[in-house]
Amino acid sequence: MDLQPRIGKSLPVGTEGAGTVVAAGANAVELIGKTVSAMGGGMYARFRRLNAAQCTVLPTGTSAQDAASMFVNPLTALSMVETMRREGHNALVHTAAASNLGQMLNRICINDDIPLVNVVRSEEQVKSLQSIGAKYVVNSSAESFFEDLTAAISATGATLAFDAVAGGAMSDTILRAMEAALGASQAAFSRYGTSTLKQVYIYGSLNPEPTVLSRTYGSSWAVARYLVLNALQKFGDETTRALKDRIVRELSTTFASSYKGTLSLSDVVNPEFAKEYARKSTGSKFLVNPSL
Amino acid sequence: MDLQPRIGKSLPVGTEGAGTVVAAGANAVELIGKTVSAMGGGMYARFRRLNAAQCTVLPTGTSAQDAASMFVNPLTALSMVETMRREGHNALVHTAAASNLGQMLNRICINDDIPLVNVVRSEEQVKSLQSIGAKYVVNSSAESFFEDLTAAISATGATLAFDAVAGGAMSDTILRAMEAALGASQAAFSRYGTSTLKQVYIYGSLNPEPTVLSRTYGSSWAVARYLVLNALQKFGDETTRALKDRIVRELSTTFASSYKGTLSLSDVVNPEFAKEYARKSTGSKFLVNPSL
Repeated sequence: MDLQPRIGKSLPVGTEGAGTVVAAGANAVELIGKTVSAMGGGMYARFRRLNAAQCTVLPTGTSAQDAASMFVNPLTALSMVETMRREGHNALVHTAAASNLGQMLNRICINDDIPLVNVVRSEEQVKSLQSIGAKYVVNSSAESFFEDLTAAISATGATLAFDAVAGGAMSDTILRAMEAALGASQAAFSRYGTSTLKQVYIYGSLNPEPTVLSRTYGSSWAVARYLVLNALQKFGDETTRALKDRIVRELSTTFASSYKGTLSLSDVVNPEFAKEYARKSTGSKFLVNPSL
Repeated sequence: MDLQPRIGKSLPVGTEGAGTVVAAGANAVELIGKTVSAMGGGMYARFRRLNAAQCTVLPTGTSAQDAASMFVNPLTALSMVETMRREGHNALVHTAAASNLGQMLNRICINDDIPLVNVVRSEEQVKSLQSIGAKYVVNSSAESFFEDLTAAISATGATLAFDAVAGGAMSDTILRAMEAALGASQAAFSRYGTSTLKQVYIYGSLNPEPTVLSRTYGSSWAVARYLVLNALQKFGDETTRALKDRIVRELSTTFASSYKGTLSLSDVVNPEFAKEYARKSTGSKFLVNPSL
């Protein structure tokens, strides 16, 4: 990202967080002492003033740590499934599937009986996802990647993908595999290719290089940027509330997060730690505890 | 396009055409002697059997030549405007805008009072479009292309583009210019960029190279394949009929086509002519007359 427009402007950090309510206005005194979580921005702080309506109240016994990252990843995973249903697809492809988010999506798809093609980048990650019950796991480092992906897409009928890699050929490869899977079942030659919509949503940028599209996937395909906040806005308040309620209910199961370690606010600006948490690698998610 | 699947398979040619009805079933005898046009496939033939319902009957005095290409380009141009309205945009960017199709789109947008940014590739084409009344014309060969495009997008508020170039950086440049135009009016810094949807539809492939996307245009953008037949299917029969009726009414004005020359069926397979009509250049559209 071009950081020029960032220079000299204040930018509060911390999209989401959780903590204990220590003070409240007259209309919200019943919240005092409760653990609440919020996606309020500027959450990396010891004290944060929020509207009561922004807070999700957690069951007694829930720690701030358990609830610290209960929105972004869980809502992103749930919104992918919601998007799939709303846009008329029946199965999903997900890249960077060994991530915290990927594991959540796996648990959701197993619970909800949705075929999911997991794309990972090592044999170790293949085994790790299989060990949590994933049925279709494809290794993008394997020589047979394209064939494996096409076979998994054929088996599931996936025409929708969420791609966190974004740069290089990943989105293109998924679209080509979808077209190959669809084309194999098409009897007549058409110069337009297949007309079934093949959709890739780019929701991360693990590879910051440009996205390269060969456009060899028939007459109906789309690549679009995906941001969970925009998706929730499209769904509306009622659906968003329903998704949040599900997260609270399944916080210690489907949506459990694991952390590599805990950082204080001064750790966060320590270049040594920054180097580690900035690495885009599976299993190096840190919890920020501003009270340390 | 990979032509492997094409080998050994019959492929009737001629998407659209027009002619005089010489014979008809009992329920359509009133068509005999009339000029009709159709988008029936396999239209490059001296005689073509079609369902009466597929035929558009033209006013007396319309020649087959006038009606020969009255569907694909006119419906494509009209469908762009219809898509703009349905998807909530208020202005358009169009590349390869000096083409036959581009000239039609210009006439439609002038008639319907829709701001249109025309992207062409030479100063000669700038002048040619200005001479038919185009207000915003940008030359992609100019050094100031990006700045010119951003200024025209700022002036029109265009957030939708139809790109016939497709390969290389064209779609990317349009999205970057839209983001620059939108960002200039945004007060606060956002790490997500602007959240207004910026949409590019790729409807041609004048540059067959891959499409390269830098993804530097905020949290809401999409690049998708566009095919007029798919668009019409989405609009439904009633809208499609209304668009066709407009074409008949404005056939000699808005939707008039011009041809560089006329080819017989044997001319079409003559490599010398093929070289010329296969050139993707403005003003080298040929009429095929299978009766020659």
